[in-house]
Parts: sequence; structure tokens; C-alpha cells
Amino acid sequence: MTTNDERVAKASKPGEDAMRLHPFYRGKTEVVPKCAIRDFDDFAIWYTPGVAEPCKAIKANKEAVYDYTNKWNTIAVVSDGTRVLGLGDIGPEAGLPVMEGKALLFKYLGGVDAVPICLDTKDPAEIISAVRWLQPSFGGINLEDLSQPKCFHILDTLRSQMDIPVWHDDQQGTATVLLAGLTNALKIVQKSIDEIKVTMVGAGAANIAIIRLLFKAGVKPENTIVVDSHGILHPGRLDIAAKQEEFVDKWRLCQITNGERRTGGIPEAMRGADVCIALSKPGPDTIKKEWVAGMAKDAILFVCANPVPEIWPWDAKEAGARIVATGRSDFPNQLNNSLGFPGIFRGTLDVRAKTITDEMCIAAATELAKCAEERGLSEEFIAPTMDDYEVFPREAAAVGMMAQQQGIARVTATRDELLRQASAMIKRARDLTQMMMKEGFIPPAE
Amino acid sequence: MTTNDERVAKASKPGEDAMRLHPFYRGKTEVVPKCAIRDFDDFAIWYTPGVAEPCKAIKANKEAVYDYTNKWNTIAVVSDGTRVLGLGDIGPEAGLPVMEGKALLFKYLGGVDAVPICLDTKDPAEIISAVRWLQPSFGGINLEDLSQPKCFHILDTLRSQMDIPVWHDDQQGTATVLLAGLTNALKIVQKSIDEIKVTMVGAGAANIAIIRLLFKAGVKPENTIVVDSHGILHPGRLDIAAKQEEFVDKWRLCQITNGERRTGGIPEAMRGADVCIALSKPGPDTIKKEWVAGMAKDAILFVCANPVPEIWPWDAKEAGARIVATGRSDFPNQLNNSLGFPGIFRGTLDVRAKTITDEMCIAAATELAKCAEERGLSEEFIAPTMDDYEVFPREAAAVGMMAQQQGIARVTATRDELLRQASAMIKRARDLTQMMMKEGFIPPAE
Repeated sequence: MTTNDERVAKASKPGEDAMRLHPFYRGKTEVVPKCAIRDFDDFAIWYTPGVAEPCKAIKANKEAVYDYTNKWNTIAVVSDGTRVLGLGDIGPEAGLPVMEGKALLFKYLGGVDAVPICLDTKDPAEIISAVRWLQPSFGGINLEDLSQPKCFHILDTLRSQMDIPVWHDDQQGTATVLLAGLTNALKIVQKSIDEIKVTMVGAGAANIAIIRLLFKAGVKPENTIVVDSHGILHPGRLDIAAKQEEFVDKWRLCQITNGERRTGGIPEAMRGADVCIALSKPGPDTIKKEWVAGMAKDAILFVCANPVPEIWPWDAKEAGARIVATGRSDFPNQLNNSLGFPGIFRGTLDVRAKTITDEMCIAAATELAKCAEERGLSEEFIAPTMDDYEVFPREAAAVGMMAQQQGIARVTATRDELLRQASAMIKRARDLTQMMMKEGFIPPAE
Repeated sequence: MTTNDERVAKASKPGEDAMRLHPFYRGKTEVVPKCAIRDFDDFAIWYTPGVAEPCKAIKANKEAVYDYTNKWNTIAVVSDGTRVLGLGDIGPEAGLPVMEGKALLFKYLGGVDAVPICLDTKDPAEIISAVRWLQPSFGGINLEDLSQPKCFHILDTLRSQMDIPVWHDDQQGTATVLLAGLTNALKIVQKSIDEIKVTMVGAGAANIAIIRLLFKAGVKPENTIVVDSHGILHPGRLDIAAKQEEFVDKWRLCQITNGERRTGGIPEAMRGADVCIALSKPGPDTIKKEWVAGMAKDAILFVCANPVPEIWPWDAKEAGARIVATGRSDFPNQLNNSLGFPGIFRGTLDVRAKTITDEMCIAAATELAKCAEERGLSEEFIAPTMDDYEVFPREAAAVGMMAQQQGIARVTATRDELLRQASAMIKRARDLTQMMMKEGFIPPAE
């Protein structure tokens, strides 16, 4: 038996470890050679004079850059630091530890070479320019932790202007993983997706992206209630109406959700809900126990604020929630986007897809849900865990197959080929890390 | 005895190997973890929730980004592909193999993590913006292969606006290495730097930077002749006078060089010269044997065009040059900037210098010259070779000491400490590469 105090103490352990280990390692990724260096004469191949030949070949045929360089497997993790975790606008330098962590996960879980790039501008037009100019070196762009509403415009503009896939993980990635979790949670409580009442706490980029994917998956808009920091969304929200050109999606949600025309705040929004998905303010008191108690029987509660969920899971359970999930890796049911982006990018890069569609995200969510289901679902196991080796290659293959089906892949491969290639690349990344630890290139954490 | 045909065949071998091995490895660098991953729970330290604490610490004190992330050892290798090797404006994609090669050398020779970034814009103002916006993630910027004259303005502007060192390798790096080579060549032919007649073939960014450093080292402007694609520079060059605002440095050279007011082209410029330094058009016929024959006794000829020098070294020797150097690693006397930038950046990063001054470059050149001299100078050995393990740490220490002396270092260290740290980091990079080859993470080149 652990007390709640012990649980809270345990929950603060990663932060303490982080403050000790970040200055010990002084960075989470590094750049290393991936070609043979037999002796110094080999630099005549990799640099001048030999390198001139591949340069000329790419000049003659620009697509050859995918064959002669690492562009095919390299992405940029781009942020301006304006909405980092639940910390808000902390600036690009302070956002760098997160982007480095993301790059670490991209490699270890997906075999993808990711470069953390924190931009020294918050201006949407400048961010768009910066990312466009980065295009030649990268096979894809992962946007991260950009504030709302500019993130929508930035993503949409870049997707329309660039030849490589651009994805905003806080929108598409989070939505994919939450859809996978919800799919399995509904199986456990035996409720149907087209009948459930869903409350969304928060109306940020992630929430809006989740709602879009949920609607595509069968949730009825009239059964959905969205609540932002000023209360429940409904057609009478004049504050949003006044900014409807800027907050296009939010204003549309005012029109089509909340069939009952309910008003009020989070407690009113949660009353009677089958599912509550919160990505709002870090807790633990953003959502109160009595509000959870007022939800429907067999309530499903996803409290995903970082670093501290809107309510501690044990409190939510005590209040009657049947299934609770968070974004944290140190609690059961982690619905963290780490389950999505490494596999999704792996599959996208492997078929050289031009973009990442909602259908590719749904294919990934379906495969994620299946991975967990095959292991046996329970109230504390609705999503696969990151240490399930099969998850990422299977997700990659599902995404790659959907891209081909939609005609946006530039490389053709069977599911087996994709699975094999993704497995090999991910295994190599993990084996390399373990070997660097074993041989002392990565010193032990103390 | 090898015939000239055999020599030419040998000189084209690196290009052939490059065309086979570039598509085999599909990239020259990759991104890997540098922190321990004992199990998946560690992601709670490196990513959410633990990572929030270092983020907050950096928000409170921006300089802490050097302690909590890899910024301290990471630089960007930035190019727009407008002047790649001797190939001209081949575009950012086609420039990427060179920037990847550079990143490889940065790591293997200097232990520096370098990210190749080829920008999809040629506009100087946009390049300046892009680099400025990259600042939060990087500890330094290596500009590369930018066309003239914009490269001067870009470098000067960025140096004045940024808090991290910005360096243009084609200017400062090349100048440093050529000064080292010239210092030793003059010892062999026993001529004094303040008496020699110097001819510069080409008036590109490198040449102009070299001239600046040579003047600082004692060469007399009136004993110098510069020749560009339209002929010898002199005060009557109306084509340059007409663009004197754009070509500030070049117009100044018209005024102060060429005491004899010589006119004509390369042959006239070379007549009687003690030293000819060419960084112009790829050869082998840019400089002819008879022009070399017209130089002074014990002529020193640096023919540094890439990938093919202005004249083949064996032809220059036959024509009477006593010391010949090129930029190629497959000939004796390689005066390639690879001897400079890895050690110079190592030293700069290790003392967290705010910029890289001419004095730091001269300190590096002096140390480079000493390294070769200690091994024993000869006509075929005027500069150390890249495989001399001592070169880069010694250069780093010399640069770091000069930065401290000039008051632009943010970290204090003794020469021994700098030498030890640089040696350890470079050794680790090489050992890691060899281990990756040995363990099969880097497959053998065939």
C-alpha cells in the first residue's frame, strides 16, 4: 500500500533525476559518422575531391539527393518555444531540452535521424519562411510546441507549399494516440463510439485535432461538449464569434457541438459524460474529484496535461472513473504521442510520402489499438507501451501501406518489406545505443 | 615510375569511389543518443514529465542551455549551394553531400557535432534571417560555399548580430591553413615574408581573406599582385570602380597592391613572383607550365582549386616550381581547410568564445606550422597531415588560449586543460567510429 503522499513523491522523481542527469550528459543526442573511415585517404571520397561527383549527379537530377545523402532519413524537430509542455511560452532556448528529447525518441523508437531546431522568432510568417528554407536538407518536418492559433495556419501553409511531409505532433500525433486509446477503452466498457457523450477540456491545438479525428471515427458532434478557459463552447460565445476569422475551427465547433446548448464551465461540461478528454492546464487540481463523480457510469477519463495531469489518477479512480489515462510514462495507460510519431515518420519516410494524411493517422491508430488488444486489454492496459518492440514497425507498415493506397508514396513496397525494413532500422538504433553504453561511450547514469 | 596518364587516372579514383559509395551509405552522418537509456522508464527523465525541470531552469537563466543541452558542442554547417567546391551555383540539394562531408570531418577530426543545413534561398537578407533564427539550438555557425560578394556582407552582419561565433570557412579557414603552409615553405626556400613577391590568382572570398591575413603576417601590399577573371587589379580597373560599393575589399586591393602598376592576365601577374597562390578555376589548364617557368627561383606554388588544381603538381614541378601544394588529400602538401576548422571550432567551443578573431586564426596557423616543423620540413612536407593526431588538439588549445587573452572567452581554462579536453573528445569520436565499423553498425565499404 502506498499513500497518496508517496505517490506524489514518486511523481516528482523524474524531475529530480532530470535536474541531476541533464547537466551530467549535457545533451541527449550527438552527430556521428555513418560511413566507413578506413583511413584518412577515405576523406578524398567523402569530401574533396571525390564528393564533387555526387554533387554533380544531384545537380543533374534533384531527386538523387535521396540516394546520395541522409535526407531520406533526416527530419527537423522545429519549435519556437511558445507552448512547451504545460509550461507555456518559455522561449526557444528553454524549449531545447524537449526538442532534444524528441530527437532521442525519434531515433530510439523509430530509427529516424532528427535534428532539434528551436527558432528565435515567434512570428508565424517568419516561422513559415524558416521551415521552407530548411527543406533541402530534410526529408520531413516535425513541428512542435507552437502556440495556438498560429500553429494551424503555419501547418496548413507549410503543407501546401512544401514537397516533404510537414506534421504538427501536438495536433496529428496526439490525436492518433488518443484515438487508439479511446478505441480500446470503449471495448472494455462496451460502449459504442457513435453513442458516447464526449467532453473535451481545453480547446488547444491538440484538442481541436482530436475532435476532428474523433468525428471521422464516428463520434457525433451534437454529443460532444468542448470547454475552453472561458467556459463551454456554444453558438452564443461572442468572444469567439468576434475572432472567428482567426479561430476558424473553434468557431465552427461552437456551431456544431453541444446539441443541448449547455453553458457553464468544466463541472457543467463533465456532467453525465461517458468520456472526458482533457489537455488543458497542468494539475493536479484542474479537474476535481466531485466533477469526475458526476460523470456517467464506467467513465473514461484521459487527463493528458504535462507534466502533471489535470487530476492525479488515483484521485480520479477514487471518484469513480473506470479507466484513467495520462500522458506520463510513470503511470499506467500512457497516452503519450511517443507512441505515434516515431512509427508514423518511419513509415512515411520509408515510402517517401509527400504528406501525412488523416487516413494515415487513423491507420496508425487502428494498428496501435490492435497491438494492445492482442496483448489482452484491461482497465490499466488500453494502449501498448513503448517497450513493446512490435508497435513501431507495425505502425510504420500500416502508415506506409495507407500512403501507397492513397497514391502519395514515391516508393513502392509490400507490408512485409516495410515491416522488415522498419524493424531492422529500429533494432539497429537500439543496439547501437546499448553498445555505446556497454563500451563506455555513454557513461553510466548515477 | 608512373606516367602522367596513370597519375590522372589515380586522381579520378576518388570520384569513382564516391559515386559507388555515396549511394551505398546514403548519408555520411547520423544522429544518435548520447545519454543512458537503461530502460523505458528513463524516458520520464529525458522527455515528459522530467524534462520540464531543465526547461524551467533555462527559462530562469538562459545561459544554462549550455549546461542542460548539447548546444555547447553543436554547430550548423550552413550553405545555399551557390559556390560549391569549384562547381559554382549547383543549388542547395546538390551542395548537401559537401556539407555532410564537412559534418563528418567536424566530428572525426574535431569532436564537434555539426548539422548540415542547405538553405532554399540565395537572398543575402533571407540567409541572414535564417541563420539568426537558428541561433538558440547552436553553439556556433560555419558558413560554407556562399558566393561572392554577398558572403562578406552575410558574415559581417551575422558576426555583429549574433552571440555565438559565426565563421565563413572559405574565408577564415582557408586563409589560416594557407598561412601555415606559406610560413613553412618560406623557411625551406629561406625567403623572408616581408620581401617576397606574391601573386594571387583569383579574387574570390578565400583569396581576399588570405590577402588580409598575409598582410597582417608581414607581406607588403605593394609586392602583391592580384588577378581576377578580367585581369590584374590596379587603380585603373573601371569595371571594379563602377561597383566599388558592392566590392569594397576588391576595390581597396586595386589601390594598395601592385606597386609596379602591372597590367595583363595571369601570365603577366606570375612573372617573377616568389609565391603564387591560386584559388580560381578548376584545372588542369588554368595555369600553364610556361607561366610557372617564368616565376622566380625557388618558386612556391599553391594551386588550390577543387576538385582539380589549376595545374597538375607534376607539371608544375617539371616547369621549375620548387614547392607545390594543392587542396587535395591524394597529393603531397594538402593545404585543405580540413586542417583548420575542426581544431579551431574545438578550441572556440571549449572556451565558449563569442566570436573567432583574426588573431585566433593566426594562433592556429602558427601552431599548425609548428606541428609540421617538429616532424621535419621538406619540399613535400610543409603542412601537417590530417592523420597527425596531435594537430587538432594543439590547434584547439592555441585558439582557446588566444580567445582568453583577447577577453572574448566565457570559460577559463589552462592550455593543458584545453589540450586534454580536446584530445579526449577527438579520441572518443574516432574510437566510436572505429567501434561502429568493428561491430557492424557501419558496414564495410566494398
